[in-house]
Amino acid sequence: MFLHTSRLQFEAKPERPDAHYARKLQELIGGAWGEMTVTMQYLFQGWNCRIEGKYKDLIMDVATEEIGHVEMLSTMVARLLEGAPAQTTAAMVDKDPVLAAIIGGMDPQQAIVSGGGPTLSDSNGVPWNGRYIVASGNLMADFRANVAAEAQGRLQTARLYHMSDDPGVRAMLKFNLARDTAHQNMWLAAIEELQEDGLEGPVTPSALFDEEYQEHASTIWHNSDGTAGPEGRWASGPAPDGMREFSYKMDPEPLGDKASAPKPDPLLYATSPENLGLIEKAIKKLT
Amino acid sequence: MFLHTSRLQFEAKPERPDAHYARKLQELIGGAWGEMTVTMQYLFQGWNCRIEGKYKDLIMDVATEEIGHVEMLSTMVARLLEGAPAQTTAAMVDKDPVLAAIIGGMDPQQAIVSGGGPTLSDSNGVPWNGRYIVASGNLMADFRANVAAEAQGRLQTARLYHMSDDPGVRAMLKFNLARDTAHQNMWLAAIEELQEDGLEGPVTPSALFDEEYQEHASTIWHNSDGTAGPEGRWASGPAPDGMREFSYKMDPEPLGDKASAPKPDPLLYATSPENLGLIEKAIKKLT
Amino acid sequence: MFLHTSRLQFEAKPERPDAHYARKLQELIGGAWGEMTVTMQYLFQGWNCRIEGKYKDLIMDVATEEIGHVEMLSTMVARLLEGAPAQTTAAMVDKDPVLAAIIGGMDPQQAIVSGGGPTLSDSNGVPWNGRYIVASGNLMADFRANVAAEAQGRLQTARLYHMSDDPGVRAMLKFNLARDTAHQNMWLAAIEELQEDGLEGPVTPSALFDEEYQEHASTIWHNSDGTAGPEGRWASGPAPDGMREFSYKMDPEPLGDKASAPKPDPLLYATSPENLGLIEKAIKKLT
Amino acid sequence: MFLHTSRLQFEAKPERPDAHYARKLQELIGGAWGEMTVTMQYLFQGWNCRIEGKYKDLIMDVATEEIGHVEMLSTMVARLLEGAPAQTTAAMVDKDPVLAAIIGGMDPQQAIVSGGGPTLSDSNGVPWNGRYIVASGNLMADFRANVAAEAQGRLQTARLYHMSDDPGVRAMLKFNLARDTAHQNMWLAAIEELQEDGLEGPVTPSALFDEEYQEHASTIWHNSDGTAGPEGRWASGPAPDGMREFSYKMDPEPLGDKASAPKPDPLLYATSPENLGLIEKAIKKLT
Amino acid sequence: MFLHTSRLQFEAKPERPDAHYARKLQELIGGAWGEMTVTMQYLFQGWNCRIEGKYKDLIMDVATEEIGHVEMLSTMVARLLEGAPAQTTAAMVDKDPVLAAIIGGMDPQQAIVSGGGPTLSDSNGVPWNGRYIVASGNLMADFRANVAAEAQGRLQTARLYHMSDDPGVRAMLKFNLARDTAHQNMWLAAIEELQEDGLEGPVTPSALFDEEYQEHASTIWHNSDGTAGPEGRWASGPAPDGMREFSYKMDPEPLGDKASAPKPDPLLYATSPENLGLIEKAIKKLT
Amino acid sequence: MFLHTSRLQFEAKPERPDAHYARKLQELIGGAWGEMTVTMQYLFQGWNCRIEGKYKDLIMDVATEEIGHVEMLSTMVARLLEGAPAQTTAAMVDKDPVLAAIIGGMDPQQAIVSGGGPTLSDSNGVPWNGRYIVASGNLMADFRANVAAEAQGRLQTARLYHMSDDPGVRAMLKFNLARDTAHQNMWLAAIEELQEDGLEGPVTPSALFDEEYQEHASTIWHNSDGTAGPEGRWASGPAPDGMREFSYKMDPEPLGDKASAPKPDPLLYATSPENLGLIEKAIKKLT
Repeated sequence: MFLHTSRLQFEAKPERPDAHYARKLQELIGGAWGEMTVTMQYLFQGWNCRIEGKYKDLIMDVATEEIGHVEMLSTMVARLLEGAPAQTTAAMVDKDPVLAAIIGGMDPQQAIVSGGGPTLSDSNGVPWNGRYIVASGNLMADFRANVAAEAQGRLQTARLYHMSDDPGVRAMLKFNLARDTAHQNMWLAAIEELQEDGLEGPVTPSALFDEEYQEHASTIWHNSDGTAGPEGRWASGPAPDGMREFSYKMDPEPLGDKASAPKPDPLLYATSPENLGLIEKAIKKLT
Repeated sequence: MFLHTSRLQFEAKPERPDAHYARKLQELIGGAWGEMTVTMQYLFQGWNCRIEGKYKDLIMDVATEEIGHVEMLSTMVARLLEGAPAQTTAAMVDKDPVLAAIIGGMDPQQAIVSGGGPTLSDSNGVPWNGRYIVASGNLMADFRANVAAEAQGRLQTARLYHMSDDPGVRAMLKFNLARDTAHQNMWLAAIEELQEDGLEGPVTPSALFDEEYQEHASTIWHNSDGTAGPEGRWASGPAPDGMREFSYKMDPEPLGDKASAPKPDPLLYATSPENLGLIEKAIKKLT
Repeated sequence: MFLHTSRLQFEAKPERPDAHYARKLQELIGGAWGEMTVTMQYLFQGWNCRIEGKYKDLIMDVATEEIGHVEMLSTMVARLLEGAPAQTTAAMVDKDPVLAAIIGGMDPQQAIVSGGGPTLSDSNGVPWNGRYIVASGNLMADFRANVAAEAQGRLQTARLYHMSDDPGVRAMLKFNLARDTAHQNMWLAAIEELQEDGLEGPVTPSALFDEEYQEHASTIWHNSDGTAGPEGRWASGPAPDGMREFSYKMDPEPLGDKASAPKPDPLLYATSPENLGLIEKAIKKLT
Repeated sequence: MFLHTSRLQFEAKPERPDAHYARKLQELIGGAWGEMTVTMQYLFQGWNCRIEGKYKDLIMDVATEEIGHVEMLSTMVARLLEGAPAQTTAAMVDKDPVLAAIIGGMDPQQAIVSGGGPTLSDSNGVPWNGRYIVASGNLMADFRANVAAEAQGRLQTARLYHMSDDPGVRAMLKFNLARDTAHQNMWLAAIEELQEDGLEGPVTPSALFDEEYQEHASTIWHNSDGTAGPEGRWASGPAPDGMREFSYKMDPEPLGDKASAPKPDPLLYATSPENLGLIEKAIKKLT
Repeated sequence: MFLHTSRLQFEAKPERPDAHYARKLQELIGGAWGEMTVTMQYLFQGWNCRIEGKYKDLIMDVATEEIGHVEMLSTMVARLLEGAPAQTTAAMVDKDPVLAAIIGGMDPQQAIVSGGGPTLSDSNGVPWNGRYIVASGNLMADFRANVAAEAQGRLQTARLYHMSDDPGVRAMLKFNLARDTAHQNMWLAAIEELQEDGLEGPVTPSALFDEEYQEHASTIWHNSDGTAGPEGRWASGPAPDGMREFSYKMDPEPLGDKASAPKPDPLLYATSPENLGLIEKAIKKLT
Repeated sequence: MFLHTSRLQFEAKPERPDAHYARKLQELIGGAWGEMTVTMQYLFQGWNCRIEGKYKDLIMDVATEEIGHVEMLSTMVARLLEGAPAQTTAAMVDKDPVLAAIIGGMDPQQAIVSGGGPTLSDSNGVPWNGRYIVASGNLMADFRANVAAEAQGRLQTARLYHMSDDPGVRAMLKFNLARDTAHQNMWLAAIEELQEDGLEGPVTPSALFDEEYQEHASTIWHNSDGTAGPEGRWASGPAPDGMREFSYKMDPEPLGDKASAPKPDPLLYATSPENLGLIEKAIKKLT
């Protein structure tokens, strides 16, 4: 169960409105790598966690914090939209290029649908959806996804940081950047801990290593013609999992037969050799 | 530019058809963490790569390999669907529970739309879409996402491995498992190399560390009531980036003011104190 | 900012697992009218609310409660999936029709993707998305949507109630039904209060009544041939807003001219009379 | 079966083109609360209606009218796009800021895809989809959704009304506003009639009142810290359904146990206590 | 403007319910190639048509007919669902494999959301969306799409025809098959007429033939290794447009330089050679 | 299996960047009728092809070529974005209308998400998805769809051709236009060949002509009031399939009974005559 306090986790006060920027910030709310994604990803991971204790408790701590980040950003967007042009005429737009540009660059749904507030969409207006999240039950797979989400999140925040010089906007982003730093380190530490605890290995899942074809488990196939690929440490020497030696397959050959689809069911009307003369018969029969 | 050989990278021959399983395999073709995702993710990362040489060449090698994985799975699905029931009547379904169950568990679109072949959708029939991929230009952020994708991919393949005992299906999955092992190790090695080369640090992007609020860059907030969170190595001691000491904030207080939205624009008709008496006026005016 | 307690708002303990039902319950988690919708709808309405006080405080109370409903349902789904068949072979399916039917009726992603947990999707596996919610800033419009959401929500819960006789499942649904009853009454009361407070009228927005064409503001057009439409109280007598008299237009005539699109821009290559002789010219020129 | 007349229900003639506004109007065509939504919602409600007579006939009357609204708006958009810039060069854009702004604010697909006509998308270009509609068979639930749809629809129309001063555009919107007024009143009247006819009560569905936990059917839970929530008429006194007394639960306690997920199936590879020592074993086995 | 008669264009009466089949029929309602697609595609083409007369009038005739096809199918689905199991328990499912199979094969939303009626989705429950349609203004491009839509539509109807032996279902499908035959012929005839009228040529648009690189306008590139491609009439001889001779390029060479992305903007934090030593600096600065 | 060469199929070098145009080009990458669609459509058609030889080999040749078109366009977009404004402030935007317009017209995700590269979305930022493609197994149905795709593709390319006068951009588009010409002719030739080979007829599928109701297989229904429809060659004379004579049904009458839905299941709570007095009972029981 959840409780809410009306105060924000951190301040979200722009010095002045900026309708252009209000659209861009939508990426951090409802983008594939925005705060909504980490909120729901962590909540579902916590509820799906099969090992009680420190991992689950950590996940729920951070999940709950993230709801508050959606709140901060949503509040910021509403404030950035204060006074955005709502009464515009074609004549005015033609005369005032700055006004025209501002209107052109705004998210029209922030005005028409939300009445000056945020939507649950990204900066192109595409709605957030539940396929952006993953909660697999395997903590190593999930923490890998979490590091990726926090990395892309901080990267996008850093890009947005330079797109505004409003001190109030920047103050909030400085907080967000710091939280993304903390969370990246945190999930990286959790990945180390999973291994130290002997619960998961670097390769996920830590299973089926006997069953898989081991001769294909450590070679990189050279399917493009760039020549520098084999210069990296993924081309030879021990793999990070400590179980294998890398190698580079320079002239890969297909190992399978020709791709082909089986004989079709006649009731599904795929084109096939059995159809030969089909049309003549159809015409003769009907005419 | 691309070239194609009609032979498969690895064999994809089931011993016998299995319409149920053909539906499940769709998850590896068009699911959020399926082969289509890694194919397009790596292609776009390669095309968006801003540093020539070993990283870019590696990405294009693997990207090109992955198109062939979509091909293997698509061929397998068509073969698993051979002879799947296409002429069914309600009467038959009522009498033959096995037939009824098989039909019920099939993906109807594999028959009705594709005529016995795969679709570009997941195991629930939801179409694959371009928001599943990321190609940010920042290789550390992208490689984190790649490890996550290969980890979820191998996890899903492992789960599917147990859902069939067809030797032909399992042979293909043993190859796929091995490739996912190789690719996880490979991206992990590439992450190490990025750091050894001095190009990126563990926290992405390796920038704005001065600007962000450092007092918030290494604390974990205790927003849930589980007590074990502080037992992990993310609660104290050095963070993985080597720049910070972790701490756990046990009784977090909101740092911002009350969340509130600004005064609305009257032309957007938000409910506000200014509306008081609105209805009386409207009725009086009109009647 | 939000806080979380690990205890559920209400118990979510099935007496025995039921993989079929776990799929159906997804409708209440990630369906268009499920708990995720009311959670995010109320949160965004609260953050977008332009009038401080009782309305906003109520919205935030209920929004915060609803996150806990997603939590209850997610926990229930994981428990219903305990022991669901994960190791199946075509041979077994062919022999055991009950097993075949259970597998056929399961959501494959709950196993393959979530490892035995819920997804953020509906009962057909379609992901929840942000366009399901609305937060317009106008409380009357929003509360109308809220009553509708709670009504559809309780209706769906009632239908699902009969689809299980597990006492544990039913106990949770009895709680959910009750909350949906409370919330329907609550939003209906809030609609009355908005009018009593003189903030909004029954027709939204309470504005532009002078500008709109009043002769069209209270007639129902008879565009279909059913004859009973005019028997209802929407056909004559005073309208609910107290401002108008209803009437029924039995033989509606179009009031506009012929629909037509303007002359096309030649650079956009629409087919138009100007194209006449186009092909002759093209062929002559080229050959 | 349907018939069509080429004349519009109401005139849709702008005095001059306005490419910016043509994009905004897309919200009323293909937005979640646009004319396409009410068209398809009412059609499916009519076809799904289980009670012959006045309700069904009314629904079909209005459904059929609404197709004509999509037609009016589509015609308007094509006319607003007449002469929109189609031949632009970067050089021109750099020199003429008004032209640049107009192009920036246009919907690119209206030109590139539709050749100067509307798309079936909203003002951000997101396609309309079938999950926007509901047709539950329960008329009270559906009419609640219909009032909400007409309210949001009129609200959005009112906002758009101020964004143009073209007399032709405004004339059409004055008609649309009036129809939305008529339809809001109409559905409100139909809701009253459903109750007067003894078919449905205010709470949907009018059933399971005995089964649901009555002690939770009329309390509002105080899960946020705003203090004004209990000041409303939803906090005490009779509920609108006439069956209950409201109350406000000021210090809500969770009624359930700790949320937890069951023991995982080993074949699904969730992280669990049973995994302890897993990696050591895996490495030992393989090396 | 549209009018509606309550009678169906053709009868839609199954002899007995069939809940499995009701799910499959959804493909013809809300699938990418179903009746909803042709309805909206033709309506938008008619409204976007830039040449008055026979083409536009034809489009509107057929568009209006198609709304009635959605109506027939929706009615059929509701009737097929009569008596579908709504009160199921896990115990019953375990004992009665036929019941279990039927429930497993049903579309859960047809019961839970629509109360025994159709949804606006395909046979996998994915909602219909507006990107399925095209209305380009160019009649040749659009009629090509229309032939394709009617061909896929008749193909899917033919497949579904064999999946039921209910005489009432088959009677309706016999009508639908016939309409799809008529419409395929009709659009093919309209394509001929467009050319005979000198309005459009076989290649769309009939323009820019001088500008395009003519040496690339009639060669097929041999990018795969199948050897039979050059045996077809697309490999040599006159092309259908009567302007060109086909040829087959057997050993295609890339004509462009190496693919590469430009130097990145440092504020976007792409990985680049300029980043060298980045991490050392970051760590030194901070610690 | 696939191989890749780092060189582009054709050059993709703009003379100067153009951030506006980079957004528009997204339509050709990730739009419903863009290169991604033909790539995946042809690949899946090839893998699903049930007849070995010239048709399948052709499909795979062209499919493989198309991947290279996505590559060319993606490279072009990255180059057009070079130097696009990444450091903007509200103050600058207010002062420099050209800068404001450029920013307003950009795709924000190309900067924020991709760091100056393409996304897998259309020109409105909507992600590409797998429902855009079709691979039915029936080659006539598929080739019809392929002609349509190439026609819409060339039409969109032609429109975009006029929106830039950059010689480098135009050079690439001249190549693309030519390929679309070649591919339209090619699929048209393949359609002729399918008929000449006696594999498929003009109407798809070439089957069930006896079963369908022949009296409805060649009439056009006059459901709209335009009078010119019967002037075309689809109104009389032989149909293109050579099997039928067209006719025009001027006063179409519905052939079916009244549309109606069956008696509802009481457990699904549809509103029905059986509900009469429901509310009275509910209130009495409870109070």
